[in-house]
Amino acid sequence: MANSMHYGDYLQLDKILQAQTMESDKQNKSAHDEMLFIIIHQAYELWFKQLLHEADSIMAIMKKPAVNDNSPELQTVVHRLARMTSILKLLVHQIDIMETMTPMDFLDFRDMLRPASGFQSWQFKLLEAKLGLKYAHRHGQEYYISQLRQPQIDAIQLAEKEVSLVELLNQWLERMPFFDEKENWKNYKTVTSPEKNKHPFWVDYRNIYIQSLADPEKNNQQFYDEVFETETSSEGRQLSPKANRAALFIMLYRGYPMLQLPFQILNYLLEIDEQLSTWRYRHMSMVHRMIGTRIGTGGSSGRDYLRGALEKHSIFSEIARLTSFLIERRRLPQLSPEMERRLGFVSPPTP
Amino acid sequence: MANSMHYGDYLQLDKILQAQTMESDKQNKSAHDEMLFIIIHQAYELWFKQLLHEADSIMAIMKKPAVNDNSPELQTVVHRLARMTSILKLLVHQIDIMETMTPMDFLDFRDMLRPASGFQSWQFKLLEAKLGLKYAHRHGQEYYISQLRQPQIDAIQLAEKEVSLVELLNQWLERMPFFDEKENWKNYKTVTSPEKNKHPFWVDYRNIYIQSLADPEKNNQQFYDEVFETETSSEGRQLSPKANRAALFIMLYRGYPMLQLPFQILNYLLEIDEQLSTWRYRHMSMVHRMIGTRIGTGGSSGRDYLRGALEKHSIFSEIARLTSFLIERRRLPQLSPEMERRLGFVSPPTP
Amino acid sequence: MANSMHYGDYLQLDKILQAQTMESDKQNKSAHDEMLFIIIHQAYELWFKQLLHEADSIMAIMKKPAVNDNSPELQTVVHRLARMTSILKLLVHQIDIMETMTPMDFLDFRDMLRPASGFQSWQFKLLEAKLGLKYAHRHGQEYYISQLRQPQIDAIQLAEKEVSLVELLNQWLERMPFFDEKENWKNYKTVTSPEKNKHPFWVDYRNIYIQSLADPEKNNQQFYDEVFETETSSEGRQLSPKANRAALFIMLYRGYPMLQLPFQILNYLLEIDEQLSTWRYRHMSMVHRMIGTRIGTGGSSGRDYLRGALEKHSIFSEIARLTSFLIERRRLPQLSPEMERRLGFVSPPTP
Amino acid sequence: MANSMHYGDYLQLDKILQAQTMESDKQNKSAHDEMLFIIIHQAYELWFKQLLHEADSIMAIMKKPAVNDNSPELQTVVHRLARMTSILKLLVHQIDIMETMTPMDFLDFRDMLRPASGFQSWQFKLLEAKLGLKYAHRHGQEYYISQLRQPQIDAIQLAEKEVSLVELLNQWLERMPFFDEKENWKNYKTVTSPEKNKHPFWVDYRNIYIQSLADPEKNNQQFYDEVFETETSSEGRQLSPKANRAALFIMLYRGYPMLQLPFQILNYLLEIDEQLSTWRYRHMSMVHRMIGTRIGTGGSSGRDYLRGALEKHSIFSEIARLTSFLIERRRLPQLSPEMERRLGFVSPPTP
Repeated sequence: MANSMHYGDYLQLDKILQAQTMESDKQNKSAHDEMLFIIIHQAYELWFKQLLHEADSIMAIMKKPAVNDNSPELQTVVHRLARMTSILKLLVHQIDIMETMTPMDFLDFRDMLRPASGFQSWQFKLLEAKLGLKYAHRHGQEYYISQLRQPQIDAIQLAEKEVSLVELLNQWLERMPFFDEKENWKNYKTVTSPEKNKHPFWVDYRNIYIQSLADPEKNNQQFYDEVFETETSSEGRQLSPKANRAALFIMLYRGYPMLQLPFQILNYLLEIDEQLSTWRYRHMSMVHRMIGTRIGTGGSSGRDYLRGALEKHSIFSEIARLTSFLIERRRLPQLSPEMERRLGFVSPPTP
Repeated sequence: MANSMHYGDYLQLDKILQAQTMESDKQNKSAHDEMLFIIIHQAYELWFKQLLHEADSIMAIMKKPAVNDNSPELQTVVHRLARMTSILKLLVHQIDIMETMTPMDFLDFRDMLRPASGFQSWQFKLLEAKLGLKYAHRHGQEYYISQLRQPQIDAIQLAEKEVSLVELLNQWLERMPFFDEKENWKNYKTVTSPEKNKHPFWVDYRNIYIQSLADPEKNNQQFYDEVFETETSSEGRQLSPKANRAALFIMLYRGYPMLQLPFQILNYLLEIDEQLSTWRYRHMSMVHRMIGTRIGTGGSSGRDYLRGALEKHSIFSEIARLTSFLIERRRLPQLSPEMERRLGFVSPPTP
Repeated sequence: MANSMHYGDYLQLDKILQAQTMESDKQNKSAHDEMLFIIIHQAYELWFKQLLHEADSIMAIMKKPAVNDNSPELQTVVHRLARMTSILKLLVHQIDIMETMTPMDFLDFRDMLRPASGFQSWQFKLLEAKLGLKYAHRHGQEYYISQLRQPQIDAIQLAEKEVSLVELLNQWLERMPFFDEKENWKNYKTVTSPEKNKHPFWVDYRNIYIQSLADPEKNNQQFYDEVFETETSSEGRQLSPKANRAALFIMLYRGYPMLQLPFQILNYLLEIDEQLSTWRYRHMSMVHRMIGTRIGTGGSSGRDYLRGALEKHSIFSEIARLTSFLIERRRLPQLSPEMERRLGFVSPPTP
Repeated sequence: MANSMHYGDYLQLDKILQAQTMESDKQNKSAHDEMLFIIIHQAYELWFKQLLHEADSIMAIMKKPAVNDNSPELQTVVHRLARMTSILKLLVHQIDIMETMTPMDFLDFRDMLRPASGFQSWQFKLLEAKLGLKYAHRHGQEYYISQLRQPQIDAIQLAEKEVSLVELLNQWLERMPFFDEKENWKNYKTVTSPEKNKHPFWVDYRNIYIQSLADPEKNNQQFYDEVFETETSSEGRQLSPKANRAALFIMLYRGYPMLQLPFQILNYLLEIDEQLSTWRYRHMSMVHRMIGTRIGTGGSSGRDYLRGALEKHSIFSEIARLTSFLIERRRLPQLSPEMERRLGFVSPPTP
């Protein structure tokens, strides 16, 4: 690199700062707020690019045959998920700025934008696809396809076909080794009738859970069995029983060294879902406040689409629902010494 | 006041800081996070008290036979509505802190609280009632009544009977004088067929609006007539046609001196609704994340109640929907000189 | 506009999303976090452009020989100042995201950027100059000049020469008409010895203020006279005595219709200063956390420069200090009926 | 617990909601905003109590002769430090609400509060003392003592005498075992002249660091030796050379399993300092905006005190300054296999 490295060149500000062409100026009906409209959307797209950059790097780590828990990689995954939630919070905050544009000010240039539409933000759809939203679960499938160009549709469909973050999560959870070895079995004295191929820990756990249910919650027992025991995949299911058990185990025993980062990973995934959901909700309210029942610039009745997406586009809901299956800490089965040892460090510091 | 005035006495910190008794301590099952649970709810209740204080003072001003637009009162109303939105934003933010309590940590003391429940926060329900939420529109009516004590139910029902903020808003909007005087009529040259008792401004406006509708929006014409022309009150309607016209007029001509504060009032009411709605949404997500499909401490299936309330408890939605009836600024009818004069100051400064 | 209008074309996303070239990639030492570094700075620059767009439009209005208080213009000024504070709050928030980059991660590519530096952000300096920061009051003058290119220096120096927002504010405040007319004089009964050319209101006010001072505050009397009475301009003074009096009057009687928007203007200017100051403070802390006592990429010892700027770059501090000269509302001089009338609307609504 | 458990009783709302007595009411000069003033300070004190609750629990864990890194305790520390930063962010946000009170509105009741003052918030001073702020380093020592009552002074002085969080941190860092064993030495091939009693890792590290310094940074070498090698305790020093080396090691190799939580601990301590500092800065600005150069209700010239505290009350600055001593990841010494093994888990999962 030459000594001439300069802030403006490095950031390519000639491109960035000359990419705002106001349609209202072209039509000689200058609308002051169109600049805000352009710049806020450009800022959103910059941040979407950053989110994709983080998601790609996380998935690259998780795609390895085995994430090496002794390497910095898991820490890197946690750190970048944390950054993603941080960025998503900013995107929610940005809506505050959009709301400084009143409906009357938007009307000054709104019709000039037709048929362009925010639904044409392919980066956001690509992000959803990479995280794990399948085409079959999208709200308004044909509609969004009709809005995008072929190379963008191709990119999203490719992401839908490739392994998604939620699928990588499933594989990673299934690889959790603790319940595979038979020697662990003997330690669970309280197991009365260990079933074949079923670790006695889970026999215990299921019993305790079922006892904890209040009368109106009794059908949670069937729900428990579907989630943790039934192998047949129900349509749209993303986590296998084995992966669900591992995730629940992480939540229950998160304090053990080996489960600390895995717990943080689960927690950040929930946080990402929540921030995405808050963003969709605030966005829906904002669009409603801006255009009411009028037709959006892309021809959609904006709010209805957004409401539909709000309900259906949750990605890590199978992690979220595990909360229903927790039991109180003081009733947890005591882990076997062997299992405890394996969850720890090589050399705990001596006093 | 004696010279002994002291911060701690003034704030009655002996009461405030000794009002945290942990149920888990009483039962010798000390749960660290119960302190957070108590303190965050107490902080919420303190802020609810402040919101009621502001709402009461705003309503006291608006209850006067005529709000004097030449007095500081309208500015006071704007200022206090702004403060209410500021407080509501903090209450949304507080959910971030609640979310630092994991479901497992909550389980440590959750069962000890039964049957106490957040649904027993009567201050929040009182606030909703004062703003304008009627019993008939509440989600889960009997349920919430069953949770409260008689004096609290009485207070809420009294507020429901008395005139609410949205009703005061209706009266205040109806008092807007500009369209009452006949002398204004002659200035609207473009009126082709002025109907009886209908100001030609609104004849013009309706024509322009209907012309602006795209084909799939054509049924907005009927919607327009219901909102602005039909006197018969539909069930649950809170703003009369006259009040709706005044509110729309304020949105359209907000730049005129006399309409500046009224516009800010409408805007802050929308903001309050939006913050309340965001609060309900985040609260609902947080409860779901915390207890999943389990039964809440008050015996309700928390999330379903909250989802119902989310949809039904919007209070100023009739203001929000006016957005559907705006037209572009450049197509607005030109006001008559007399009306323009009346919207202005006595003595505009000379150059 | 053809029917082909498309979101991506309209936003020129080909430019925006292809303007990230990582220096660490070029050097085959790929550093994941460089993408964040580039994108966050690009987002900052986009928002700086928006802030300049708002500031320019506000100044264009205030440059008119007389801002027409009966037009929507003042409302527009208030609205856009509010938007500027909203954007500045987001810029403060963005620092949270920058802080997800650890010092170690920054080190991976930091040396590759030399000698580029954030001090080369000419848009931010241009904004400061437009608001009213003069070259003479800049911290590290030569330093910042040495960092910029000639066209950028020219643009900033031009802005420093042209009339700034704070100067426009001074002119606008001086135009406030209320104290120019002699007929107002007779109404102030309490005036004992009206001085020549001095409105009796201000004689009254000064007396009341001086009486309100506690003993250790007695030298505020001299300070009062310097601010409100002494015409000789002290070096660096931005508001004349007349403008200071008008601003104080607005703060004292903000409830009167004609003073409501002027009060909001003063308030938002203070808010802008505070957000800029918070931004500088958080930025300084962040740089310290990131590079400690090391030399910044531009060769400066970053934190010291930022600390200097923090103290010196306050722009509207003359408005802020007026707080020192307020008196209690119940002790305010009663305005003359004529003055009250002139502060009001033409036609207050009748009950 | 009886079935009568009720939300209002549990939260002791009778105490909480009846602890607002307005001095302006007593004096028949009702000032609407005094309620806000009381409630916001009460909310602050509630949160201070929560911060103390968290700090106490963290220190109780760290006071144990050896924190067991294989137990959930370290995770608990991290989690509660995270919560403390979350609460501090809310406290910063709360200033936004305080700022909705204008200086004129504050004047309506300000004089009635004398001589009560925010400096009498002993909980905040207690928190500072527990974290590690010693009396000798307080700004305005006598002043703050003069404002507090004896039992409160006693509590703070007790906390100053007892071991503080920063001292516990020092002890915990000193216990880090990795450099104590001689067998690790042989692996550092690059060590040319290992000094007596000095682990070759640190000989290597110091050489690499010194080579990395640019010319104007050369005196950082002396600074390095003071921080990491000189045992003589300079006045006010809180971390020993050994503790500093451990903290630096954690920052450099944070990805290893055993260092992941320790790194998060260091990071949250910096975050706490930064939030406290931001809070002081915003608070200082707010006080300045509210009372200008007038004397505060407690008799202090508020802003000057706060500015002094801002500079001096940083608690974890010795952690912060370690940033100055980092080197690029690609130049880090390669750890010995034995050390790598000891930083890992017992049983990394097999592919």
